[in-house]
Amino acid sequence: MSKSKRLIGDLTNNRIEAFSDGIFAIAMTLLVLQISVPEIPQALVAIELPRKLLSLWPGKLLSYAVSFVLIGIYWVTHHITFHHIKRSDPVLLWLNILFLMCVSFIPFPTSLIGQYARQQLTVIIYSSTLGVTGLVSQLLWWYATSDHRLVDSDINPRVVSLITRRNLTPVFIYLLSIGVSFFSVDLSTALLFVVPVLYILPSPINRY
Amino acid sequence: MSKSKRLIGDLTNNRIEAFSDGIFAIAMTLLVLQISVPEIPQALVAIELPRKLLSLWPGKLLSYAVSFVLIGIYWVTHHITFHHIKRSDPVLLWLNILFLMCVSFIPFPTSLIGQYARQQLTVIIYSSTLGVTGLVSQLLWWYATSDHRLVDSDINPRVVSLITRRNLTPVFIYLLSIGVSFFSVDLSTALLFVVPVLYILPSPINRY
Amino acid sequence: MSKSKRLIGDLTNNRIEAFSDGIFAIAMTLLVLQISVPEIPQALVAIELPRKLLSLWPGKLLSYAVSFVLIGIYWVTHHITFHHIKRSDPVLLWLNILFLMCVSFIPFPTSLIGQYARQQLTVIIYSSTLGVTGLVSQLLWWYATSDHRLVDSDINPRVVSLITRRNLTPVFIYLLSIGVSFFSVDLSTALLFVVPVLYILPSPINRY
Amino acid sequence: MSKSKRLIGDLTNNRIEAFSDGIFAIAMTLLVLQISVPEIPQALVAIELPRKLLSLWPGKLLSYAVSFVLIGIYWVTHHITFHHIKRSDPVLLWLNILFLMCVSFIPFPTSLIGQYARQQLTVIIYSSTLGVTGLVSQLLWWYATSDHRLVDSDINPRVVSLITRRNLTPVFIYLLSIGVSFFSVDLSTALLFVVPVLYILPSPINRY
Repeated sequence: MSKSKRLIGDLTNNRIEAFSDGIFAIAMTLLVLQISVPEIPQALVAIELPRKLLSLWPGKLLSYAVSFVLIGIYWVTHHITFHHIKRSDPVLLWLNILFLMCVSFIPFPTSLIGQYARQQLTVIIYSSTLGVTGLVSQLLWWYATSDHRLVDSDINPRVVSLITRRNLTPVFIYLLSIGVSFFSVDLSTALLFVVPVLYILPSPINRY
Repeated sequence: MSKSKRLIGDLTNNRIEAFSDGIFAIAMTLLVLQISVPEIPQALVAIELPRKLLSLWPGKLLSYAVSFVLIGIYWVTHHITFHHIKRSDPVLLWLNILFLMCVSFIPFPTSLIGQYARQQLTVIIYSSTLGVTGLVSQLLWWYATSDHRLVDSDINPRVVSLITRRNLTPVFIYLLSIGVSFFSVDLSTALLFVVPVLYILPSPINRY
Repeated sequence: MSKSKRLIGDLTNNRIEAFSDGIFAIAMTLLVLQISVPEIPQALVAIELPRKLLSLWPGKLLSYAVSFVLIGIYWVTHHITFHHIKRSDPVLLWLNILFLMCVSFIPFPTSLIGQYARQQLTVIIYSSTLGVTGLVSQLLWWYATSDHRLVDSDINPRVVSLITRRNLTPVFIYLLSIGVSFFSVDLSTALLFVVPVLYILPSPINRY
Repeated sequence: MSKSKRLIGDLTNNRIEAFSDGIFAIAMTLLVLQISVPEIPQALVAIELPRKLLSLWPGKLLSYAVSFVLIGIYWVTHHITFHHIKRSDPVLLWLNILFLMCVSFIPFPTSLIGQYARQQLTVIIYSSTLGVTGLVSQLLWWYATSDHRLVDSDINPRVVSLITRRNLTPVFIYLLSIGVSFFSVDLSTALLFVVPVLYILPSPINRY
């Protein structure tokens, strides 16, 4: 009985994972829609086009790349998280949908910061969205692991703390970015690049 | 023979489920596209941006969140429904495509109510779309369960009535919302929040 | 050896099918984006909104529903087709990508006929796109079945001709619609509803 | 132990592949959004519509078809590549996300060249994007195969060099196209059609 229940749990998780992957993939691919082709009268194309295209850099192109990688990072964490979650329940389901709501929202602050870079307000909105996304990811992990609710009872405690660190590190960096934005918007913007670098380069956060 | 037929039915249902999950995931992710970045002349950004962004609240942001959760609710119900449907036939296939047509339409009334909140017409369109979606979901369940057409003959009758209640509760709330809109648009709008709360919080509708 | 080769072929087909399902689902869900929320100055909303929303009917709403069902029909046919295709080769792969290119294009003629209904040109473009899509679907089936190239050697010949009929019936109806458009655009438009009705209602085309 | 580790690697790769397929499918389907329905005052539709629609050819329609096929080609290569990659590691994961970032970006240069054809700048941007995409695909393959890092130790060396040739041929053609653009933009544009033709027609690049 316990065996078969767990099997159903696994199947359910498979469908949750496949569904989540769909949301991740669409959110990432929609990011490109914010980079719109400039409208230029035919006669002025040769003169205006280079200038207009140059204006896509850095705002729109960097925000595309950074958000793509950040959603990729959350996808990897989600992947690792659900590798260890063995059962499912309604709370997990809704925490996951709340998490996906955050992920699916990311294209908006990305467009915003791409259009209006170097504005304190857009940096704060961007950092808040990404920070809350990380926080919800951690809520889900706390819920799943406390009292070994949805994970194996013999799960390696190191795994629990590693995923916790993976979730909370961006939250702290985005909080820092929000705080710094009151002194220097440029420094605050620079902090947005820390998370991608930290999670792609070989670093303790990736030692898994 | 009966065994192998059922196997084919299961496979078919797997592909129907995966396909449906794709539609659910895309419809949910497209919701963010209605929240567009305001166009502001460069010189006025610092002054205008905060005001324009504040105007996204409550209309656009709440409609995003509510619709995201509502599609999530329909996805969960779909998930539970197809867990019990063991065979497939052309009628089920087309009821499912009709259902997906409703789900896939939800981004439009969401944009509409996000742009024109507190208008009786937009509340009615929103409630009608969501209500019809729930009704079609129930049609599918009625078709599958009457005479145990596509479900196991020993299916627990409590499961049949539970899923029926899950499908019809929103239909009644949306009908109520439409009725109330003739007296108070604000109350009618408030009713739109009842379904998300009812299905996320622990309530009899979730006792499954 | 023959067994293992076929296994690889099956796996490949699974990935082709999953990939095709993705394209189908996205094309269907993108259809709603053509129904845009009307832009109305705040002061005029109460007066203008009902009129503007009414103007979505019939053009935009019917074209949404019809195209959704038509892509659904092609999806069902694709599903049945690949149920019988047991092996894969590069030609099949490219015929399938050509077919998906047609499916993925359908949102454009849908927007066009939704915006400019009752124009001979838009009816012709709509019918041509849908007709060519059906033709490519049949090309794929001809390729797979001739000399039993990619199907089982003992495939029921009735299955071969049934799928052929499923593919070619829309092609003939769309050709007819194009021809009729030179005499009556309204009659030509009416013919666009024949395919959905024929494939949803119990009819010989569905006897499978 | 080695067996079980490889099993986990395979599972991981399955999820990476499914996720990648999602990105491929969405990027291909989004291409159609660049072909927008012309806005024409109701009174002028009969006169203006044919002219406006004709102006979609060749720019927008050809760029749609070519980009669709090109992403299809990269998808096929990705498919073959991951058929031979048996294990996964963080570097592979990130090279794959970098590759998907390139694929997901393709709708932008496609819109750009569709809108502003016969401009050296747009041809260069298009060729660069597609060229870099091929290059990253090859980086991934180099990483996976050097020292048989993530492939079977007895992998056929002919397979390694065939996939390498599949990856690098477009890179060289796009480099050529960029070079030629300084002398003739039309010849440079013509070169963009070489890759689709080469990979669809039976040619050594497809002998696999």
